[in-house]
Amino acid sequence: MKINRLDIPGASTVKFTDKVLAPRLEKCLTSTIPSAVEKAYESGRVDAFDLKNYHGKREYFYDSDTAKILEGIAYALQIRFDADLLKIFQEWIGKIVACQQPDGYLNSYISGAAPEDRWKHLNNLHELYCAGHLIEAAVAGKDLPGGEALLAAVCRYADYIDSVFGLEAGKRRGWPGHEEIELALVKLYRVTGNERYLRLASYFIDDRGTEPCVFPADEWNFEGMKIVRQSDKPVREQSDAHGHAVRAVYLYSGMADVACETGDTELLEQCEKLFRSICNKRMYITGGIGSTFYYEAFTRDYDLSNGALMYAESCAAMGLVQLASRLFNLTGKTEYLEVLETAIYNGVLSGIGLNGNTFFYSNYLEVDENSSFYNFGAAERQPWFSCPCCPTSFSRFLPQLGSFVYSTAPGNLYVNMYPANQAELQVGDLPVKLEISGHYPYDGNIRITMQSAGEFTLHLRIPQWCKKSSIKLNGREVQRVISGNWQIGDVVEIVLDMPVEVMLSNQKITGNLGRIALKRGPLVYALEELDQICPVREIMIRRDQKFELKKIDGLPDGTLAISGKAYREILPADELYFNAAADYEKISFCAVPYALWGNRGKSNMCVWNRYYK
Amino acid sequence: MKINRLDIPGASTVKFTDKVLAPRLEKCLTSTIPSAVEKAYESGRVDAFDLKNYHGKREYFYDSDTAKILEGIAYALQIRFDADLLKIFQEWIGKIVACQQPDGYLNSYISGAAPEDRWKHLNNLHELYCAGHLIEAAVAGKDLPGGEALLAAVCRYADYIDSVFGLEAGKRRGWPGHEEIELALVKLYRVTGNERYLRLASYFIDDRGTEPCVFPADEWNFEGMKIVRQSDKPVREQSDAHGHAVRAVYLYSGMADVACETGDTELLEQCEKLFRSICNKRMYITGGIGSTFYYEAFTRDYDLSNGALMYAESCAAMGLVQLASRLFNLTGKTEYLEVLETAIYNGVLSGIGLNGNTFFYSNYLEVDENSSFYNFGAAERQPWFSCPCCPTSFSRFLPQLGSFVYSTAPGNLYVNMYPANQAELQVGDLPVKLEISGHYPYDGNIRITMQSAGEFTLHLRIPQWCKKSSIKLNGREVQRVISGNWQIGDVVEIVLDMPVEVMLSNQKITGNLGRIALKRGPLVYALEELDQICPVREIMIRRDQKFELKKIDGLPDGTLAISGKAYREILPADELYFNAAADYEKISFCAVPYALWGNRGKSNMCVWNRYYK
Repeated sequence: MKINRLDIPGASTVKFTDKVLAPRLEKCLTSTIPSAVEKAYESGRVDAFDLKNYHGKREYFYDSDTAKILEGIAYALQIRFDADLLKIFQEWIGKIVACQQPDGYLNSYISGAAPEDRWKHLNNLHELYCAGHLIEAAVAGKDLPGGEALLAAVCRYADYIDSVFGLEAGKRRGWPGHEEIELALVKLYRVTGNERYLRLASYFIDDRGTEPCVFPADEWNFEGMKIVRQSDKPVREQSDAHGHAVRAVYLYSGMADVACETGDTELLEQCEKLFRSICNKRMYITGGIGSTFYYEAFTRDYDLSNGALMYAESCAAMGLVQLASRLFNLTGKTEYLEVLETAIYNGVLSGIGLNGNTFFYSNYLEVDENSSFYNFGAAERQPWFSCPCCPTSFSRFLPQLGSFVYSTAPGNLYVNMYPANQAELQVGDLPVKLEISGHYPYDGNIRITMQSAGEFTLHLRIPQWCKKSSIKLNGREVQRVISGNWQIGDVVEIVLDMPVEVMLSNQKITGNLGRIALKRGPLVYALEELDQICPVREIMIRRDQKFELKKIDGLPDGTLAISGKAYREILPADELYFNAAADYEKISFCAVPYALWGNRGKSNMCVWNRYYK
Repeated sequence: MKINRLDIPGASTVKFTDKVLAPRLEKCLTSTIPSAVEKAYESGRVDAFDLKNYHGKREYFYDSDTAKILEGIAYALQIRFDADLLKIFQEWIGKIVACQQPDGYLNSYISGAAPEDRWKHLNNLHELYCAGHLIEAAVAGKDLPGGEALLAAVCRYADYIDSVFGLEAGKRRGWPGHEEIELALVKLYRVTGNERYLRLASYFIDDRGTEPCVFPADEWNFEGMKIVRQSDKPVREQSDAHGHAVRAVYLYSGMADVACETGDTELLEQCEKLFRSICNKRMYITGGIGSTFYYEAFTRDYDLSNGALMYAESCAAMGLVQLASRLFNLTGKTEYLEVLETAIYNGVLSGIGLNGNTFFYSNYLEVDENSSFYNFGAAERQPWFSCPCCPTSFSRFLPQLGSFVYSTAPGNLYVNMYPANQAELQVGDLPVKLEISGHYPYDGNIRITMQSAGEFTLHLRIPQWCKKSSIKLNGREVQRVISGNWQIGDVVEIVLDMPVEVMLSNQKITGNLGRIALKRGPLVYALEELDQICPVREIMIRRDQKFELKKIDGLPDGTLAISGKAYREILPADELYFNAAADYEKISFCAVPYALWGNRGKSNMCVWNRYYK
């Protein structure tokens, strides 16, 4: 029996009016997606589907990028219709469908450049990964004009894949080196009702990591390769989140989806366990995950260095949000929303410039021109990458932001975050219209105004970071769960106390010893050198003080910086090692939201700064 | 005109009686060299010279290892004769000589496994590097029975190399991807007087880095490869020490040698400049160099992280000692001796276990089972490596330790370090016998007793780390330069004040911010977790205190540990990030000499520890 889950409103049902997410979403529609479309054409990704006439470069991951952009286009069209964009949507679908082989197979790289490699390198060639993204794009666009053709094509493709892989006679065992198809197949099952797709998703999850491994055993470092691909053990036996971070959270998302549909509570519990492994021991304070650029992977508990080796890939943070969203909607546990919100406002948004068309692949927590030999070169967002998974992830992630704000169930409406927005939701059969106003996440005063009437229970999230809160319904104090027959004009006022918090980290994170991070509400702050009177490395923040909030030039309207008192440590500048006492000069410092760093030119930056007791 | 240089006494003229170097040298003779000999046989390195009958594995670096062990054997035989070892010496020479091709070429890998590759991959195949080590072995063993055959063979080989490389008509341009042959050719010139070898060394140095580059241009990352091999610019135009650290210091040593013999003061100045680039900005406090394991290379100024990425290869520290020794003997500037002594007592000796047959490749300054994902596996010394350059370097380095203690010139005797020893030296034509006693480097009270008579000037080094010293000759205060007609029984007493010093580092080394290292005399200390009552990471050393010295179990007789007062910082153990005040518990800590860490089982270790103001 299916596990109940909360419903996720379509992204287009929420119109942001806040000063953080609304402009990011707008930039996505006007800059991120158009740039990605242009890059897709330029790089031959669109033409690559033309097996006859295109003779340019093909890469094994091309289709995933095209599919992710297409998925973003589908959401964009639902948010704001655009005839030119619809043409592109339809043109791409036409090309993709034309690339499909008679047996249903659909991959521009393999069919165009390496037909002999079909299903030969499941570990590396991303065929099932690309298939998953095509399916997600098809599901996203199924109701748009022309979308049905892609849905039909991916169903044929999925049918074909199902005819190839499985434990039944006549099929071969196999599973993807890069997970994604599992969650995509559950999406396809949900829109088609075809249980074959759910069974195939289950098969991919349950066969994964069993012996013998389906990947080529002659690979250099075969065991390591299995770990990177979460294939070292059956997924139900894996005790911690490991391997490539993006793959891991995609896998766990697929596990959650399968668990939901099959009622497999054991699988859901395993998924929750793996999530806890991440958020309790393997996650940066920003929600970034994957602490090494080797294989873009998790390493071990508390190995969370801030510079050189760290990774915290933008795609992984987005994947973590998607996983957290699934787990909240399946369990109702708000702990998942803590991670979801942290990741969105910090580790995800840091990955994209305010211009909407430059990106970080890795989201470092410390950049210094001296001590960051490897990452200082990567300390400026780039328009594109040879493997542009991050830019294309933003194309499809940002338009889905609206789907994280609310969850619903018949008779119940959950508010998960408080960015100002106008929403038109379905609570069971009841259409609900409401508005959230305020300046969240910069201000804890939130006002929810009902714009439709009806009976349901409103569940308000009080974030874990908030230690003091009050809620009023039409002026009367109430609890965070409010049942009632709502009337137009009912006002819920929420006050979330939002002081600047001085965060320490577990002592096992040795790079953070003696260092603090500043946080306010869900926002992690960072010191950018261009805001300071001296190098960031010389600054020691005074721990016990009243921090001030202030506006700051050059960052978006509404942004609040934190300023406060610090000491500048003065030591001999020319010697390498010395026995000398430091001088301390009283100075002020200024910290900006981490997600906004690097938008005003190249600069050193540090999240975990030293403190002066 | 040649640049004057101080003479270096042969290593066998100094018999250590101290408690640090003497046992290390003894272990080298009884363990390091015998183990290396065994490994050389086991791995086929000896048989590899038999081109006809040996069909096992060959590697392009095999001959360098065999040659380095052979060089060590030659020194060992001079220190303490051993008939069995002499047999090995002669057997190996027989095999090496038999491998020589009719034209003089001599390389077991190329001749045995890849004759078509001769001189084809100067960047990678180490032919000139192996040749250099064969030459060094031949020079070391030239006066031993059977040694003349190897000397003749390497002369023929060098003649052949000289016929191949150069700017003259009929020759080709070329230089080694791994420097070493330059310094070896100067050694060969010095023992043969054949100027051809000096000219060839000069050629290799001066053509290096000119255009067009002699390495294959189709190599991936050609520019990076040139930098790693110090071939990005002519060596006289290079402004900082860069690329592979071992190669760099071998190159600079060769430059110093050529400068000396050719009187090229400009080249010597360039060499000094590159040395300052190292010791002022790119060297660990232990004398370790090469701060990244990527290409075992230098990175940039002040990029000196202590964990994961750092390298500080044992071979590089030994190479730095050899370079510092050359520069001191050429310039008489004692600043070079500071680095020489620091590197020997810390970054070199840390690389070899007290058992004499286990080795670190990388000498980390911090090892933590949580935050050191990459190096914790490497936190135990290993008996051998697939590329065993470090073990074989110890085989030849430790028997040369005696050559660093004194330098001489007619009428002048320089004492560079003060380990207890018995020495029989030549000061110009005057044989000088003397004894140093005391417990240096654990004690600053040193006594030099003359055991022969004669007139010369004694130059005593007062180390930079010593801020207060006194010198007495037969009870009368004297200066550090003492001219006189020495009599048997004359006693010089030196007192070097040797307090525990609290060292800070330049703020640009961001990983060391808020951290101190303890040093006493030339010894850097480290906290090993097994000596503490809590994890090293929780310890904050009190800065202003009287540190105590104490004996310690499990380490060699004479070892002095440092104990002192510290605070243990107590924070929540289970949370990842939190806003909480720390508790502080008063504790004691214990630090041991860095070079001795890791000899009592696996443990976390840290050189740069936090302090509590």
